[in-house]
Amino acid sequence: MAKNSSRAVGRHFLHIPGPTPLPDRVLRAMDTPIIDHRGPEFAKLAKGCLEGIKTIFKTTNPVIIYTGTGTGAWEGALVNTLSPGDKVVMVETGQFASLWKKMADKLGLQAEFIKTDWRTGADPKAVEARLREDKNHEIKAVCVLHNETSTGCLSPIADIRKAIDAAKHPALFFVDTISSLASTDYRHDEWGVDVTVGGAQKGLMLPPGMSFNALSKKALEANKTAKLPKSFWAWDEMIAMNKIGFFPYTPATQMLQGMAVSIEMLHEEGLDNVFARHHRLAEATRRAVKTWGFETVCRDPKYYSPTLTAVILPEGHDADAFRALALEHFNISYGSSFGALTGRYFRIGHLGDTNDTMMMGALAATEMALSLAGIPHKKGGVQAAMDYLVSAHSSAAKQAAE
Amino acid sequence: MAKNSSRAVGRHFLHIPGPTPLPDRVLRAMDTPIIDHRGPEFAKLAKGCLEGIKTIFKTTNPVIIYTGTGTGAWEGALVNTLSPGDKVVMVETGQFASLWKKMADKLGLQAEFIKTDWRTGADPKAVEARLREDKNHEIKAVCVLHNETSTGCLSPIADIRKAIDAAKHPALFFVDTISSLASTDYRHDEWGVDVTVGGAQKGLMLPPGMSFNALSKKALEANKTAKLPKSFWAWDEMIAMNKIGFFPYTPATQMLQGMAVSIEMLHEEGLDNVFARHHRLAEATRRAVKTWGFETVCRDPKYYSPTLTAVILPEGHDADAFRALALEHFNISYGSSFGALTGRYFRIGHLGDTNDTMMMGALAATEMALSLAGIPHKKGGVQAAMDYLVSAHSSAAKQAAE
Amino acid sequence: MAKNSSRAVGRHFLHIPGPTPLPDRVLRAMDTPIIDHRGPEFAKLAKGCLEGIKTIFKTTNPVIIYTGTGTGAWEGALVNTLSPGDKVVMVETGQFASLWKKMADKLGLQAEFIKTDWRTGADPKAVEARLREDKNHEIKAVCVLHNETSTGCLSPIADIRKAIDAAKHPALFFVDTISSLASTDYRHDEWGVDVTVGGAQKGLMLPPGMSFNALSKKALEANKTAKLPKSFWAWDEMIAMNKIGFFPYTPATQMLQGMAVSIEMLHEEGLDNVFARHHRLAEATRRAVKTWGFETVCRDPKYYSPTLTAVILPEGHDADAFRALALEHFNISYGSSFGALTGRYFRIGHLGDTNDTMMMGALAATEMALSLAGIPHKKGGVQAAMDYLVSAHSSAAKQAAE
Amino acid sequence: MAKNSSRAVGRHFLHIPGPTPLPDRVLRAMDTPIIDHRGPEFAKLAKGCLEGIKTIFKTTNPVIIYTGTGTGAWEGALVNTLSPGDKVVMVETGQFASLWKKMADKLGLQAEFIKTDWRTGADPKAVEARLREDKNHEIKAVCVLHNETSTGCLSPIADIRKAIDAAKHPALFFVDTISSLASTDYRHDEWGVDVTVGGAQKGLMLPPGMSFNALSKKALEANKTAKLPKSFWAWDEMIAMNKIGFFPYTPATQMLQGMAVSIEMLHEEGLDNVFARHHRLAEATRRAVKTWGFETVCRDPKYYSPTLTAVILPEGHDADAFRALALEHFNISYGSSFGALTGRYFRIGHLGDTNDTMMMGALAATEMALSLAGIPHKKGGVQAAMDYLVSAHSSAAKQAAE
Repeated sequence: MAKNSSRAVGRHFLHIPGPTPLPDRVLRAMDTPIIDHRGPEFAKLAKGCLEGIKTIFKTTNPVIIYTGTGTGAWEGALVNTLSPGDKVVMVETGQFASLWKKMADKLGLQAEFIKTDWRTGADPKAVEARLREDKNHEIKAVCVLHNETSTGCLSPIADIRKAIDAAKHPALFFVDTISSLASTDYRHDEWGVDVTVGGAQKGLMLPPGMSFNALSKKALEANKTAKLPKSFWAWDEMIAMNKIGFFPYTPATQMLQGMAVSIEMLHEEGLDNVFARHHRLAEATRRAVKTWGFETVCRDPKYYSPTLTAVILPEGHDADAFRALALEHFNISYGSSFGALTGRYFRIGHLGDTNDTMMMGALAATEMALSLAGIPHKKGGVQAAMDYLVSAHSSAAKQAAE
Repeated sequence: MAKNSSRAVGRHFLHIPGPTPLPDRVLRAMDTPIIDHRGPEFAKLAKGCLEGIKTIFKTTNPVIIYTGTGTGAWEGALVNTLSPGDKVVMVETGQFASLWKKMADKLGLQAEFIKTDWRTGADPKAVEARLREDKNHEIKAVCVLHNETSTGCLSPIADIRKAIDAAKHPALFFVDTISSLASTDYRHDEWGVDVTVGGAQKGLMLPPGMSFNALSKKALEANKTAKLPKSFWAWDEMIAMNKIGFFPYTPATQMLQGMAVSIEMLHEEGLDNVFARHHRLAEATRRAVKTWGFETVCRDPKYYSPTLTAVILPEGHDADAFRALALEHFNISYGSSFGALTGRYFRIGHLGDTNDTMMMGALAATEMALSLAGIPHKKGGVQAAMDYLVSAHSSAAKQAAE
Repeated sequence: MAKNSSRAVGRHFLHIPGPTPLPDRVLRAMDTPIIDHRGPEFAKLAKGCLEGIKTIFKTTNPVIIYTGTGTGAWEGALVNTLSPGDKVVMVETGQFASLWKKMADKLGLQAEFIKTDWRTGADPKAVEARLREDKNHEIKAVCVLHNETSTGCLSPIADIRKAIDAAKHPALFFVDTISSLASTDYRHDEWGVDVTVGGAQKGLMLPPGMSFNALSKKALEANKTAKLPKSFWAWDEMIAMNKIGFFPYTPATQMLQGMAVSIEMLHEEGLDNVFARHHRLAEATRRAVKTWGFETVCRDPKYYSPTLTAVILPEGHDADAFRALALEHFNISYGSSFGALTGRYFRIGHLGDTNDTMMMGALAATEMALSLAGIPHKKGGVQAAMDYLVSAHSSAAKQAAE
Repeated sequence: MAKNSSRAVGRHFLHIPGPTPLPDRVLRAMDTPIIDHRGPEFAKLAKGCLEGIKTIFKTTNPVIIYTGTGTGAWEGALVNTLSPGDKVVMVETGQFASLWKKMADKLGLQAEFIKTDWRTGADPKAVEARLREDKNHEIKAVCVLHNETSTGCLSPIADIRKAIDAAKHPALFFVDTISSLASTDYRHDEWGVDVTVGGAQKGLMLPPGMSFNALSKKALEANKTAKLPKSFWAWDEMIAMNKIGFFPYTPATQMLQGMAVSIEMLHEEGLDNVFARHHRLAEATRRAVKTWGFETVCRDPKYYSPTLTAVILPEGHDADAFRALALEHFNISYGSSFGALTGRYFRIGHLGDTNDTMMMGALAATEMALSLAGIPHKKGGVQAAMDYLVSAHSSAAKQAAE
């Protein structure tokens, strides 16, 4: 903001790794009079959403729509399938994996971590090894984050499924897709996931306040004997009521109004186009970061996240101060840092309803803020990103012409 | 709707007993770009809401703001204060009391009902009697709905507090104000309530998707030893994070944007004016109902609800068919029926951002729909309501002039 | 508003005879980022509007869409077809007819009035008589308001066309439909009108700021020789640019966004249903007025307006004070009064996106305000309106069933 | 858009030289139920706008608010002050000057051009010379565009005032500020302008559909004897009605709702900050253009426009094809070209609610589109713009710290 000004001018560039920029069309769909949540108009809306969300998870099984955040959907996955004292194995990919583990412990489960240095994704081999050790099949569930939002590492879910199968282990397989769903390919049924946890506020381009459990037959079977106490998050009544287009309680009507439109928008673009776009913007961002001479938190290209890039600043430079400066001068926000590297990195979100021009504005703002902050870096990051995008558009245009 | 028309014309008259009609000002406040939930703008917004909501509950203690529905806030009240096997006493005022009891049982508590015929409020004497029996203080909590939404009966919370005190019983006192908060007087601190459960979508004039736990010192003390497993609904991290204006997880930002405005609107009108308006519209509605010759579900005037009136149709007339006819011809929706009288009554909501003119439209639509449906009734209900409102405005004008 | 309150609660009941209540769907369509008015998206939007508006005027000739108010479209009709000193005949139906005549005089025309007492519509016989007198065909145009908004009188346009033909007079025929278009039947081509003037803010359910000239071949012919100076209102460049979906200047993009939706809504309901609804609400209003014992300004039933009813209060009662009282207590607004009866009457609008329930709210508010104001009237107006609407819905339902 | 996609993703970058991107706050203020344009709420709104707009023109005289476009306000300036056959002198700065002249001719004035090559602003010396020749003071008005939107040249209004004074000529002085108002310094009173024409859709950040005439005492004096016919654009009734907060006809209520907010926003930022921001973004744009190796249409730095830059492409490259390609790939729109250079240049708007990050997104999109289009240019334009902005922010920060 300029001196003596009390107004931040123009658009804010929301480059936290979610919630993501809300499309006007979604906001306007939510800006509508409330309707009777027991009437015919509602039933039509809800049925459309309940069917539509299946196409996003790529499943034919029920998807539970919670009026609650992703954290709540984590709880839903655990309490509906497990019993007190059950052992679960999780992979410590970062902050959000740690929070999920903490939750499991609080709920009375025995959660065990497969460690990492928070700079990589989940290694299928490590999962397989741990399961092979578990001769008595005491482990009831394996929990993995598809995309660890705190570090920008994507884990290979299909390969982890194969690892579990290779170990011939009967554990349930739970995957968190909060920051990957509707941004990169995900196949609940094909990849044999038992509960997929998702949220509204990232790739789905909705506000926070809604989350999901996509189920498998095996999960529904486990539900029958699961003994953890549950009420709000319980699946059974939800599934029963959803069949006629209603919910056991008053759901977030306006969120459903938005969701109907956001699913429509994803299919108008085409899911494969959505995924390609996220990969393109992610690569452009990484090219800029590399040119500046910075490391990303994710240290192995095979785990690079398509939805966010965590950028480590040179030793001695405070990432939070950098974020504050960028916000003040360029009306842009980034995500903060966690764990051993707290204060050392910032996270650039490149997900949701974001296009190339928005992304280049954000990268230019970042490069300018680095200069203003006096953080040593090589110029040319923006140029490198532009060069990459030009080549990407150029090949896409050639392909389209063929 | 007219023949051959695919459009319902004009405003819908939403007279379910909540969610209530959303004021445009609230909707527009929510129709705003999403902001960084870890940034300074958010902290300012959240702090305003956290302070503001206290003025609605009339408390100086913390109020927990959940991203979840009222049902979730019921769970919050129980899991944060109680331990497995704890005994709780509830008053069976109707369908929603029954649902809360069912939840308590599911969560591993021993819930016991003080029965009613679902046509009255909670009787302080019955509560006192039950507590006096409980010599060993096995009962850990008393749970009452301030307003039973399924029947339209309001219970005397201050008197129940006195009853508990008279019995010299240490039980916690939990009150559900989902369909009464911000519509009729409620005093969390003064009335000695330990946990008050509230929701956004009724008197607060917000969409569904947010709920509350107002706390007492005693509740916070109980929290320290409560053993029911909890994570999403846990108070401790919430209170800690709220202090700096943040939440342990990504909260429903847009709901907070709306809430800041709805609290402002309640105070612009003045809470006492809000309450007087609800009582005036309720009385007008009852005058119409009486003139038509119908009984209300609430059979004792001392329990009449200020927020909804449940109207019993003459034997042999299907209340659900009546609701469908009214919706088709007059674009109005009412609440449905529960329990022994299922199908026999409909509920007229008169709460939230509703004025005299809206209410008269609704009552006229109701009287016209009764005629169209061929349901025997005496004419003149609308006239009786008008006569009452004229006298009410007239005395108010006189008072103002004095 | 209550004492000590700074907020008007609930919906405002906008019963001025236009602008009319804006449907949320129209408002939301207008609440959209602005687009390039020379780009492909705009051209598509504009072409849709230019074609759509023809279906409302029932014409196959071009319709000019002005970024300006109805007053401007009056000017458009005159300056595009006439030359300085030309004689035009108008019928003095009330205030708006007088304003149009005043405009004609200001622009250098010789405007002559066929007088009325401002309580009736235009009489085809009077028009015919005047034209028969004009042996030399000095009269170049006849100007009539389809609906005189200041009095609530509707004139028989088809019959006036016949009267002109019967007089074998070559005068152009200009009709103002500002407060009738899209509310009651109107047929530009079939009725042989040369320029129809229309506005956005009444039956079209849009905000003020846009107006129309529907043209005939004869009007386009007259345009070639018309000598009144013109630039902004000139048809020629407009027609040329409209052909490719553009405008000679930057038009009101957001109005076009709304218009595309409002035309869609009119056709979803069905124009004949729209007209039937307006007639039904008008009749209900008149039944109430008669029961109260009041006269309407329109003194001949054959001229009754389907869009507004002007109600004369008993001698000695100030209609403007009454309007202020109704606004304060019941959040309703009416139109004011003009001419010899200034201060004696108020106008109830019953047009645009208004349904039976809204109308009954408005009539109840009116009857209550009459009581509060101490204006002598017979009770039962609201009852009479309800009785009429019940019978109307009842016959409609029977017809639909047959 | 991607192959097989029917959706343009993310924000559109609207870089036409107006209409400008609408701030959400303005859009939301306009997305509100319509109010009675003769009621007390309206009068308050209108008075606020009528006073507020004076602070933007920097005048204490009345400002006429038209419901019409800028073109209409041109007509307002002429018809209210001049008589048929009056001689006016205009400066042919480009397309919009030509349109104004064409209008003057149509209205029956004798308009004379001081020629330019459409690549420069108005030269005060040329104006002075022409006026000195006019010994008999036949010239009644001098008309100049402050900013010629078709070329991106800004004319020195204060100096032209001095030139008129130096020539001791009594001509009225009319200035068009449509694409400069609220973007660069303008002082109606201090600079002695008689009628300033302005529009809503550029610096004022409103949709098109509203325009202005700021007046001087001399203009009001001229109005008394002006003989051009006028009605809709006439000042007299407008000024009379505005005094009590109303308009002679139904004005564009929603535009006024937006205007109240947009004026508030301009003052929150501070007008001097607004001007500095426009100059900064303009300079950044020119640095990019120069680095690419392109000429701007404006060939003299002293006339550089702060609101738009017209960029000439190398011979043999079609600017319209370039604009279409940029729109398809990067969701950005630019202005088109006029006059002798039609098809040779495109115009980049950098006005209204635009910040540095948005501008850098736009410049990056432009540089990428140049590459994709195969238009020869030197890389580094974006880098040059960033370097400039960093230095500008850096000095501003230093100044603020001092």
